[in-house]
Amino acid sequence: PSRAKVESVYSNRGMTLEEDLNETNEYYLAQGIAVVHKKPTPIQIVNVDYPKRSAAVIKEAYFKQASTTDYNGVYKGKYIDFEAKETKNKTSFPLRNFHEHQIQHMNQIVKQNGISFVILMFTSLEEIYLFEAPSLFPYWQDMKKDGRKSIPKADIEKKGHLIELGYHPRIDYIKTIDKLYF
Amino acid sequence: PSRAKVESVYSNRGMTLEEDLNETNEYYLAQGIAVVHKKPTPIQIVNVDYPKRSAAVIKEAYFKQASTTDYNGVYKGKYIDFEAKETKNKTSFPLRNFHEHQIQHMNQIVKQNGISFVILMFTSLEEIYLFEAPSLFPYWQDMKKDGRKSIPKADIEKKGHLIELGYHPRIDYIKTIDKLYF
Ligand SMILES: [Mg+2]
Ligand SMILES: [Mg+2]
Repeated sequence: PSRAKVESVYSNRGMTLEEDLNETNEYYLAQGIAVVHKKPTPIQIVNVDYPKRSAAVIKEAYFKQASTTDYNGVYKGKYIDFEAKETKNKTSFPLRNFHEHQIQHMNQIVKQNGISFVILMFTSLEEIYLFEAPSLFPYWQDMKKDGRKSIPKADIEKKGHLIELGYHPRIDYIKTIDKLYF
Repeated sequence: PSRAKVESVYSNRGMTLEEDLNETNEYYLAQGIAVVHKKPTPIQIVNVDYPKRSAAVIKEAYFKQASTTDYNGVYKGKYIDFEAKETKNKTSFPLRNFHEHQIQHMNQIVKQNGISFVILMFTSLEEIYLFEAPSLFPYWQDMKKDGRKSIPKADIEKKGHLIELGYHPRIDYIKTIDKLYF
């Protein structure tokens, strides 16, 4: 299908980036292409009820900030790890979407020779880029030194990799990983 | 320290296998040896309260069965993935400690050339073994065909790899992984 056609289907079905990535990962799993899962949301459990003859009920719990990224797994033996973020902006990607501990985690992965990247979606433009962690780090460092708080779209186009949107899988990021690392 | 001494310290401090593995993984992370995290427990959230000016409170939630193993991460670029289990038995390790979906996940990892294993602890003996997933599969298949429901300790000694217990890190499983795969 032409890109225009895919895009119009894409926008009409009201799917979220997370749902699309989950569908993509299910496809990879079913086809034996890669094993990638989204990590569960970390929860701080405070109070649990254990009723007789039925399942334990969590009665009080709180959301914790994740200390890592959302997705990880294996492709051809290599460790892959990523975070997915979206913006409605059209000309830049805000860095406030990331947290210091996530950047630290990406750094640890890169040092351990893992494949670390972010999936950046410009929702209004319906464009999704794979942006490698080592390309992200300088923008983060710059922001911390009171530099700009976003990555210009032009830089993402240049240093990142546009992922073609499809039906099945919807966001074929492994194709890009394969080109870049294998 | 001698093994006897380490063991007596080990038994007196009342640590759990999970705590020891978390300590070990923190050590690996701090030393830049490996990046391995325990996945959060998956929770099915049913009801959340959003009070004004304070954090969201989960009021009703349930534990979900995990679809993968508990630990994964990266060592020297390679994907590693494992589950940790313990038994009070002294002569065999019960297979009921595992679930079909975990074995399936291990199978998917092995097919994708990832490093998949289990950490088996005999708590009464204070012995911990690294047992590679491909060694585990035949016992699982056999059990499903009405075979025996446990792995004989002698088989674990022969096919598995005894991990020396220490202080810091406590369960140095990466040493074994390094010998076996690098
Ligand atoms: Mg996230
Ligand atoms: Mg478990």
